[in-house]
Amino acid sequence: MNNQLFFTTDDQTIKQRAFEAIEQEQESIGYYALPDQDTTPIKTYAKTIDASVDTIVVIGIGGSSLGAKAVYNFLKPVKKLSRKLYFCETTDPIEISDLLTNISIEKAHFLVISKSGTTVETFAIYKYIYSLRPDACAYTFITDPNSPLEQYAKEINASVLHLPHTVGGRFSVLSTVGLLPLALCGVDIDALLKGAKAIKAEFFAQGVCNDTLLNKALFYAKHHTQYHINCLFAYSETLKYFCEWYVQLWGESLGKRQRHSASHLGLTPIGLIGPKDQHSFLQLIMEGTRDKSVTFIKIEDFEDTLTIPDITLPHLESLDTLNNLPFSKLINMQCDSVMEALKTQGDIPIDCITIPRVDEEHIGTLLFYYELLTSLVGELIDVNTYDQPGVEAGKIILKKKLQRS
Amino acid sequence: MNNQLFFTTDDQTIKQRAFEAIEQEQESIGYYALPDQDTTPIKTYAKTIDASVDTIVVIGIGGSSLGAKAVYNFLKPVKKLSRKLYFCETTDPIEISDLLTNISIEKAHFLVISKSGTTVETFAIYKYIYSLRPDACAYTFITDPNSPLEQYAKEINASVLHLPHTVGGRFSVLSTVGLLPLALCGVDIDALLKGAKAIKAEFFAQGVCNDTLLNKALFYAKHHTQYHINCLFAYSETLKYFCEWYVQLWGESLGKRQRHSASHLGLTPIGLIGPKDQHSFLQLIMEGTRDKSVTFIKIEDFEDTLTIPDITLPHLESLDTLNNLPFSKLINMQCDSVMEALKTQGDIPIDCITIPRVDEEHIGTLLFYYELLTSLVGELIDVNTYDQPGVEAGKIILKKKLQRS
Repeated sequence: MNNQLFFTTDDQTIKQRAFEAIEQEQESIGYYALPDQDTTPIKTYAKTIDASVDTIVVIGIGGSSLGAKAVYNFLKPVKKLSRKLYFCETTDPIEISDLLTNISIEKAHFLVISKSGTTVETFAIYKYIYSLRPDACAYTFITDPNSPLEQYAKEINASVLHLPHTVGGRFSVLSTVGLLPLALCGVDIDALLKGAKAIKAEFFAQGVCNDTLLNKALFYAKHHTQYHINCLFAYSETLKYFCEWYVQLWGESLGKRQRHSASHLGLTPIGLIGPKDQHSFLQLIMEGTRDKSVTFIKIEDFEDTLTIPDITLPHLESLDTLNNLPFSKLINMQCDSVMEALKTQGDIPIDCITIPRVDEEHIGTLLFYYELLTSLVGELIDVNTYDQPGVEAGKIILKKKLQRS
Repeated sequence: MNNQLFFTTDDQTIKQRAFEAIEQEQESIGYYALPDQDTTPIKTYAKTIDASVDTIVVIGIGGSSLGAKAVYNFLKPVKKLSRKLYFCETTDPIEISDLLTNISIEKAHFLVISKSGTTVETFAIYKYIYSLRPDACAYTFITDPNSPLEQYAKEINASVLHLPHTVGGRFSVLSTVGLLPLALCGVDIDALLKGAKAIKAEFFAQGVCNDTLLNKALFYAKHHTQYHINCLFAYSETLKYFCEWYVQLWGESLGKRQRHSASHLGLTPIGLIGPKDQHSFLQLIMEGTRDKSVTFIKIEDFEDTLTIPDITLPHLESLDTLNNLPFSKLINMQCDSVMEALKTQGDIPIDCITIPRVDEEHIGTLLFYYELLTSLVGELIDVNTYDQPGVEAGKIILKKKLQRS
């Protein structure tokens, strides 16, 4: 993976301080250690699931589903995966019914994932599905050690796996939360971790000499009052759910009150897919308020030979320049053209990430790269990157409404 | 449809001026007339497509696909539609291959939609698909009158339908562009227009007495430097693609240089789906910078009886408050709870749209409501709502790259 920045920052002292803070954080924040974990327990457990199971259903929401969804949908169109993976992550009755018509409930295994063990959506859905299939063997529970959910699972003799309690939901993709559903579908989870490990090693070895992660984080932090909307413009449909994962990671980590001030502060994430969103959001980036940075993501080698045929359409001869062009080349030319157009504006900060191929290793690198970037920016804008106090108020109101109903 | 605002504005003179400008615009901007059109030609044409065709594929991007996609996906889970509808709207080779494995190309009819008649993505895909099925009968072209595409279609004896030339792509959902694919799938397009007609009639009859559309537009316009991110938080998965349609409509219409100043200006749209995005974006709204307005969309009656069963889970007795609750009630309670939590903040402008049911009429109302709102805000912030000059630069660079390649 390569990341080219088309902007600069230079402040060695602040960079050094941020780097040291991140080094320190490793002691208390669990996600940093995930690339180095031993995956044997997860792979061993995955093997215990019967071969007749053809569908895995994650019952979970937010951090319990977005990571695995991002990786699965990235790989699905190009890899022969062994099982189908679905996500039950809404209380919309229309969507739940629609999903259940698509699967054979007797041939499915359900992963009930809830860090706290009391997520309303997850248990509303679980109760419903359990009423259709009241068989403990069909369920695996993933939760914090000693949560009430663990006690429940033990009571019904169902399997329980743990999420390390220092790993927050939105940083949990490389823990059991993401790895188990992916392993059950035949994703090479060791390759995923290998990619994460590579970027982790590079970051901690280079320190302030690293010219991308620290520079980028510092730029976003320094200019957060102006460029407070950070667009990810990915030129491949395979990255659609990666964008959703990014939106949660960035928004929930960096939308906060500052630790040492009364200020509300936030960097707003936006996920875009090219070339589609050239016909939607691009106008606003080009001509709208100068409040957006844009990170392009390109796939260097689609490993696909689909080519535009050599056909001349009468009256549309100007389109002959497309003939014999591989689609993979066209989409990257489109990305380059938009990047060039934005560069000429001079006041829109852009950078470009290039992923060599669509495979486990490179999505692993990209995931961990964004987690590191989020931690660095959080440190530099002085927020607690790892909490989410703002979502509690609504939960409390709902709880009261439920008690009254 | 009901829209309750939890903020106020009052400036009768400006409202009167905006209303008159919109009244005037009807002479030159074509979309206003669409609810009153005679749909007989579209329905008659739809009947000429052979009953053996089981799949409709739209080859088009941006305004040529987003409208029909929004309506189709809104209705699909609840209505028995007669054909499947797919959208070919990318140059990503992985996605194109993936899509084509899902359809039987011999049983599909293709709608090639391009207002200008020269959209690169559309013709790259068309050439490829035409090479697989070189049969003019399998294609219908929708384009501006006298475009080179119309000439081409005539040359190969394929059918051509027109888009009124005063209707822009992102305002074209209620024209042939949206109505033909929907009619071919069994959507009641007259009911769709009936809904649009109702809100249009109400708006033009009430004028400045209208207490929602004009108030809302004026609020957004007056406070556009502070609340310049406008979130649509829809509590139903059926509205997922409606959100994408909204993002294009809002972003491309309102991200502009002002007509009478040198300023870049823009309102940034964000589409969210509840309750999922309570676990993702909500933290940023609650605790982040006060730069966001939020419009909630609720479905009053899901016409669905799916209910959480009366099951007590040992150690999780606190979740018994969910028992016997219909999911449709739960999702709306979740929406109400988040709304209440945001209201207590006092400085986040929110409003709530309630749609009675998931049907053609009410999505028609919602679409036209948002078109009117967009036109009003565009007028009030002094931009040309209907052009998109910012997307040209990238197209010109791509054209040069293609000539060189």
